[in-house]
Amino acid sequence: MKHQGAVRGVITLTTDFGPDDVYAGVVRGVILKINPDAVVVDLCHGVNPQNVLQAGFLLDSSHPYFPLDSIHLAVVDPGVGTARKAVIVNVLHPPFTFLAPDNGLLSYVLARHIPRVEHKLANGRVSLQGLEEHLQAFEITNARFWLHPVSATFHGRDVFAPVAAHLSLGRSPAAFGPPARSLVYLPPLLPVKGLGGVLRGQVMHVDRFGNLITNFKQGDLPGEAVTIELGGQRVKGIGTAYAGGEDVLALVGSSGYLEIAVRDASAAKVLNAGIGDEVVVTP
Amino acid sequence: MKHQGAVRGVITLTTDFGPDDVYAGVVRGVILKINPDAVVVDLCHGVNPQNVLQAGFLLDSSHPYFPLDSIHLAVVDPGVGTARKAVIVNVLHPPFTFLAPDNGLLSYVLARHIPRVEHKLANGRVSLQGLEEHLQAFEITNARFWLHPVSATFHGRDVFAPVAAHLSLGRSPAAFGPPARSLVYLPPLLPVKGLGGVLRGQVMHVDRFGNLITNFKQGDLPGEAVTIELGGQRVKGIGTAYAGGEDVLALVGSSGYLEIAVRDASAAKVLNAGIGDEVVVTP
Amino acid sequence: MKHQGAVRGVITLTTDFGPDDVYAGVVRGVILKINPDAVVVDLCHGVNPQNVLQAGFLLDSSHPYFPLDSIHLAVVDPGVGTARKAVIVNVLHPPFTFLAPDNGLLSYVLARHIPRVEHKLANGRVSLQGLEEHLQAFEITNARFWLHPVSATFHGRDVFAPVAAHLSLGRSPAAFGPPARSLVYLPPLLPVKGLGGVLRGQVMHVDRFGNLITNFKQGDLPGEAVTIELGGQRVKGIGTAYAGGEDVLALVGSSGYLEIAVRDASAAKVLNAGIGDEVVVTP
Repeated sequence: MKHQGAVRGVITLTTDFGPDDVYAGVVRGVILKINPDAVVVDLCHGVNPQNVLQAGFLLDSSHPYFPLDSIHLAVVDPGVGTARKAVIVNVLHPPFTFLAPDNGLLSYVLARHIPRVEHKLANGRVSLQGLEEHLQAFEITNARFWLHPVSATFHGRDVFAPVAAHLSLGRSPAAFGPPARSLVYLPPLLPVKGLGGVLRGQVMHVDRFGNLITNFKQGDLPGEAVTIELGGQRVKGIGTAYAGGEDVLALVGSSGYLEIAVRDASAAKVLNAGIGDEVVVTP
Repeated sequence: MKHQGAVRGVITLTTDFGPDDVYAGVVRGVILKINPDAVVVDLCHGVNPQNVLQAGFLLDSSHPYFPLDSIHLAVVDPGVGTARKAVIVNVLHPPFTFLAPDNGLLSYVLARHIPRVEHKLANGRVSLQGLEEHLQAFEITNARFWLHPVSATFHGRDVFAPVAAHLSLGRSPAAFGPPARSLVYLPPLLPVKGLGGVLRGQVMHVDRFGNLITNFKQGDLPGEAVTIELGGQRVKGIGTAYAGGEDVLALVGSSGYLEIAVRDASAAKVLNAGIGDEVVVTP
Repeated sequence: MKHQGAVRGVITLTTDFGPDDVYAGVVRGVILKINPDAVVVDLCHGVNPQNVLQAGFLLDSSHPYFPLDSIHLAVVDPGVGTARKAVIVNVLHPPFTFLAPDNGLLSYVLARHIPRVEHKLANGRVSLQGLEEHLQAFEITNARFWLHPVSATFHGRDVFAPVAAHLSLGRSPAAFGPPARSLVYLPPLLPVKGLGGVLRGQVMHVDRFGNLITNFKQGDLPGEAVTIELGGQRVKGIGTAYAGGEDVLALVGSSGYLEIAVRDASAAKVLNAGIGDEVVVTP
């Protein structure tokens, strides 16, 4: 057997299946049955159940660390078994392939790759017209690549996994369905600016240490001398490391987003905060 | 180094080790030390501690999605260090190999592969005589393949892992011990029919979404117009998808078994139900 | 592409990232981008947050089960972003490579490989002088192998992962920085003997079954006829298996350390005990 080009073969999985169940293992089995040389990597199975935007946030900030041409499969799919579409999105600079339900999960990825994305939105969708130099998208409609019978509740296994495996073998994304002209887009992804330059964002993710990762990018912040407010607690200024700072501190974390942390403790517990909580930054 | 045939090399792990500990990693290390080209897949480490039947249920419904000739190693082993046997079971159509303690874990797999299994049961065991065309079983007794000293508490590492690795290199299962003439079998696996066609089964598994997976197969159900009762809650009729249905709904899930779900919520929490709870289906 | 020698390519990960987050997946991505043929194994991501000594304890007892020349990367790093050093330690008999922050994480590994380690300690550090036949250590200072910009909070991704990947490709550890003359060492690792031969140790780890793994090695115990005390509960004598013993029992577990277990239940819950609790053994 010829050894596959290893770069072509990386498939990452981002899901809300949890670390305790068989679902991720079964997806891996389906992939290996089609491409025995695929290198399947668990990126994250701990997305909060059905939290589409959290999945997209984590996928967007993590995917650039993988080999070029990696295939990123994300399944957070509250609409599974309904009319929601499934899509392949090929981004070109740098080259990666994404597979996901067309439910807004890829919004952060699209925002990264579509210049002036805010001008292309209408009715909760982003138009892909004229973007051929940046990305290509395809609907997944060609049932001949799927496992049959297709279950109503586990398209990760029956639709996405076999398509990802065939893509990893080098098949063109156009083989799986027609081009997609627009995709679901879920704004606001980033903080919104109000009176006096006050920015209102939110907690997008809580990591294992209880660090609260927000949707403020470094570039969104008006400087380091800001006041950050979260659930009645105020943090003044932005630091750089977890150790040695104030008890409650704010820093731009490894993902490039503002984090609220507590030294040697869980900020989520100390501040009684979690995903979706509002974060206000005042210059 | 010659590249192994990849199909031969897949070994899946199903255990109650949990996702947080070193045990699964150590098993993987032992396998890789013997067969560096083995493809080891975590099927599930979240089986409830010592729940032998849940492990068997999950393994049975998941294993067909893996490449043919995959080796499925399952370790849920409350009797480790006692006289309980360890076994290899080779099923032939389609070909898979299972390794497990002889404690009933493989009951669902045996029920799938032994025609009219109910006629072959006696004293809590199933006889394997005359089944050579369907499956072959061997005791694991040949200590020369094991790690020594063999610990009293971790045969997954010291017995099962090295045997699985040697099997993945192509060694015959007969090398590891004598044929097994019967195996422990834990009925009832499937619901029992009572007066008026009323069926009594149970919850076998709760997934990360709180869906309650029962041991009713589609073929066990007298139709879609049934009433399902679980802990005083009744569900009328069987639907097809999680989204868009009633608040509490029943559907045949991706594993082929009846599931009780709650739309956008955890059925386990809403119904205060869990593994082992009785489920009654009335025509 | 030439197939790498598979032994050279095994990299294990031991962290406190938890099983639910993207961090371990991202580390894996960085490694695969540099060495597509690396075999990356999750040894454990469930170390208690920032518990450096627990990580070292688990790594030490687990690492011998992996292929020779495996690279063991451990990141439990409360001092990330401060002046703490990062190190590579090559042990020679048997050959393994360790990467970790220089924060005491490798104390158990060093105690295993340095003869009469207690004579080489001063000011919380162990001197490595004259140990060339046993181990070699190097600081990780050569920034040209790192990902840039290096984040202040995730050296696992930006420093350790790329260095581990380059090591797995066969690069000499001396390429990454100068020799380290001493390393941080965190005693006491093993129980301390007091009046009347009473030994005082502690719980180092709690596994998924609630078994309490202590830092008493078999050789530390004055025999099997001892009394073990933990939080007011006494256990008399040391057994061999989980099944069939007393309700609360003590045995030397698979890692070679004394464990306190409760038959068919969690000792951690029954005894209300956890990591760091004192364990007293009286002859």
